[in-house]
Amino acid sequence: MFELHPQLQQDCLEIGRFRLSRLLLMNESRFPWFILVPEREWVTEIYQLSEADQSVLVKESSTLARGLAEAFSGEKLNIAAIGNVVPQLHLHHVVRYRNDLAWPAPVWGKFTPMPYDKDGLAEVVARLQAFLPDAFLWSLA
Amino acid sequence: MFELHPQLQQDCLEIGRFRLSRLLLMNESRFPWFILVPEREWVTEIYQLSEADQSVLVKESSTLARGLAEAFSGEKLNIAAIGNVVPQLHLHHVVRYRNDLAWPAPVWGKFTPMPYDKDGLAEVVARLQAFLPDAFLWSLA
Repeated sequence: MFELHPQLQQDCLEIGRFRLSRLLLMNESRFPWFILVPEREWVTEIYQLSEADQSVLVKESSTLARGLAEAFSGEKLNIAAIGNVVPQLHLHHVVRYRNDLAWPAPVWGKFTPMPYDKDGLAEVVARLQAFLPDAFLWSLA
Repeated sequence: MFELHPQLQQDCLEIGRFRLSRLLLMNESRFPWFILVPEREWVTEIYQLSEADQSVLVKESSTLARGLAEAFSGEKLNIAAIGNVVPQLHLHHVVRYRNDLAWPAPVWGKFTPMPYDKDGLAEVVARLQAFLPDAFLWSLA
């Protein structure tokens, strides 16, 4: 039975589900930062997924990425599977701006997160939702 | 005509070619650090590739990743498309160890690279070459 890693449960908000992956929002209000977690047990690296799952993952990632580009109009997306701290495979998608706090450095491990307030959370979710195609299952937690 | 970004030319050594992507070795001897660059002009994000190219890219990435896992026996792979400094789409693959210089932080933007000497370069390339399947074009530059 797949279970989300406790650290991801603690740091993130579950905001939707794709066919393969759960969609999380990192609870860090200073960066539009989303995470896909394929619902597969014991997998820590992309290459450990079946070829079919890898193909679905890249599609889900690109659907999310295109939605993020349209919804948040960043200068760049940063997409990464790191997992040095949380080994459960998870794929970061961070919208970056030239005037953001960390630019041009990556955001990982740099800051203590500043959580969303209720309005900020609703806004960021609604903003993405407007740009995700209906074909992808999207159920607000 | 596709041309490798000058910064990648400067920081990396071209060590092979897959069907879609050039395979570069980051000239930083303290981390086994490889980069795939799809030979497509003007592409800065994975989602901008055609679906067929995205599928090839994930296959090439996973072939490389599996080879790296076998050749270098790291604790974790870090795979990332960042591009805040060099916008040309390129996919980092870094083998990480619990006792490496940066663990558990990511390696990007942290250190001034320490280049390989001739023997070190030959060794790292031979080590990976032994674990990459023949089906993938591999021509030492």
